[in-house]
Amino acid sequence: MPEVAAYAIDSPTGRYHPTTITRREPGPTEVYFDIAYAGICHSDIHTARGGWGPIKYPFVGGHEIAGTVSRVGSEVTKFKVGDRVGVGCFVDSCRECDMCRQGEEQFCTSRPGTVWTYNGVGRDGLPTDGGYSKAITVEQDYLMRVPDNMALEHAAPLMCAGITTYNPLKRWGAGPGKRVGILGMGGLGHMGVQFAAALGAETIVLGRTLSKKEDGLKLGATDYVSTQDGAAMRKLRGSFDLILSTISDGVDLNAVLKLLKAHGALVNVGLPEQPSSLEIGVLTGQARVLAGSNIGGIAETQAMLDFCAEHDLRPIVEVISADRIDEAYDNVVASKVRYRYVIDVATI
Amino acid sequence: MPEVAAYAIDSPTGRYHPTTITRREPGPTEVYFDIAYAGICHSDIHTARGGWGPIKYPFVGGHEIAGTVSRVGSEVTKFKVGDRVGVGCFVDSCRECDMCRQGEEQFCTSRPGTVWTYNGVGRDGLPTDGGYSKAITVEQDYLMRVPDNMALEHAAPLMCAGITTYNPLKRWGAGPGKRVGILGMGGLGHMGVQFAAALGAETIVLGRTLSKKEDGLKLGATDYVSTQDGAAMRKLRGSFDLILSTISDGVDLNAVLKLLKAHGALVNVGLPEQPSSLEIGVLTGQARVLAGSNIGGIAETQAMLDFCAEHDLRPIVEVISADRIDEAYDNVVASKVRYRYVIDVATI
Repeated sequence: MPEVAAYAIDSPTGRYHPTTITRREPGPTEVYFDIAYAGICHSDIHTARGGWGPIKYPFVGGHEIAGTVSRVGSEVTKFKVGDRVGVGCFVDSCRECDMCRQGEEQFCTSRPGTVWTYNGVGRDGLPTDGGYSKAITVEQDYLMRVPDNMALEHAAPLMCAGITTYNPLKRWGAGPGKRVGILGMGGLGHMGVQFAAALGAETIVLGRTLSKKEDGLKLGATDYVSTQDGAAMRKLRGSFDLILSTISDGVDLNAVLKLLKAHGALVNVGLPEQPSSLEIGVLTGQARVLAGSNIGGIAETQAMLDFCAEHDLRPIVEVISADRIDEAYDNVVASKVRYRYVIDVATI
Repeated sequence: MPEVAAYAIDSPTGRYHPTTITRREPGPTEVYFDIAYAGICHSDIHTARGGWGPIKYPFVGGHEIAGTVSRVGSEVTKFKVGDRVGVGCFVDSCRECDMCRQGEEQFCTSRPGTVWTYNGVGRDGLPTDGGYSKAITVEQDYLMRVPDNMALEHAAPLMCAGITTYNPLKRWGAGPGKRVGILGMGGLGHMGVQFAAALGAETIVLGRTLSKKEDGLKLGATDYVSTQDGAAMRKLRGSFDLILSTISDGVDLNAVLKLLKAHGALVNVGLPEQPSSLEIGVLTGQARVLAGSNIGGIAETQAMLDFCAEHDLRPIVEVISADRIDEAYDNVVASKVRYRYVIDVATI
């Protein structure tokens, strides 16, 4: 059982510190890879700091992971030593239920279901640890291949922020002739803008302020509007086919829904800690849709990476050393990151 | 200008009484028809009694209308004297906007937009009056043809209750291999059950009590569950592809959403008077959908009537005389009607 260096946190109010965790020797169909970069996702923070409820400590975050294969099991056919790979929010599932067979492994309906990359329990019964660590063992079927022209520090955030935004934009029809809004211009939003524009949609960012307007336009938006600008918002009423909300908290659902045309959809990927107030009539009158979306399956995550390679889309990242994780968390909460922190795992 | 007998109400707390209203002589493309039956829809009550806000009185309700053509304009090609026809919630729209061209006239985006059958303003600038009256003048393009084997008292409620439930079931994929829930077994719900079953879905009624269970099973449901039965509801968690909510008020959205599979949809056709509390996480985690739906276009309403004729589907109606409208309203509010009151317009 390889021991590897990692960074862990011991309580909701604790600080990350160096530690050592144990990884499995790769089984026959497993791949062991050296992690080069791990993105910091807002979900890591909600989880580490107990915002979504109690968890087991010590906790090792990170589900945006990219690196290079260093060992493979005897029956591994998809990857070889030296391959550049990534893993996202989950590392295993049953492969047999309807959802798994449809390539929607994140909704595996078997018990115990999808095995999450951290704060989960593997099929070996052991708790899972995330990517703020030097290496990880993963079933080959749950790994993505990083395209040749993509740097590993860019690949890492795509494993969650990328698929989380790509999936709903594809599913809900972002494309030519459609007006798509991206609500929030953070780690998710700045990928959403790129995907919607590359898919051919007229893309408008709906940001709290205009401080990131220049970036939004550079990434493909045709317009960038402050949600605090009442006149601009009124002008947009009833005009969107699709809005992707990447914001967790503080969204006035009813106001955003009114921006949609008849049959338009507001898709949420955020997970607010408090319930929202919804006027059902805003949905009914114009047959509008309010939907949720939760990452995407393995095949679609690979398709998203290939789409990024083809269209030259990349996250904008700030690479940091592991001793800055706590500071990075605070900055993400304060919306101060542009646009994704990625830990250089060489510093662990 | 023909004067016709009607029933009107003069205030939110008033009672319906006989009166006389004026209809247009049919213009070149208009049809004048003698109304035989007018259904009583819960929307009539919300509107007449001010539940959705102030309206102009005197008010003549009724947007579930069926009768026989007695005069046609000089350019009318679609109907002739003696034809059996129906009209629903709207009587005109612009015909030129994207929505009208897509056959979604109920979402007409021009000003003034869709002309509602009552409490609206026609293109002649005059207020519109509903079907609690002896005759009405309607543009030929906004009329449906009643199938030969369908009685007019059955055709009337289909103009709203029928299309309101048929449309979302079709749009959201009710069919073979799908489990569909019908929440509420009233005027809308008892049509929803029939449509879902005829479309080939496994159909389960979710009623407040089991008092209408026998009827539900007769109409095609394979099961009928009380939403107050905690154990039965828990067993159904995560099992529905689609739930059609026909209830306006008192629905626990979060509990109902949890009955859906991943990617499942809860579609609301009710219009509660109060906001609802929604846990967005219930949508996000399983990529569930909460949607609204609002009647349907003219072509689809005709398709729904033809589907009813083909599959021998009918509303269950109680035919009443016009002097019982107030009593009928009270019974609808108290959920005492089985399942749709239809006014015999001969009694007006």
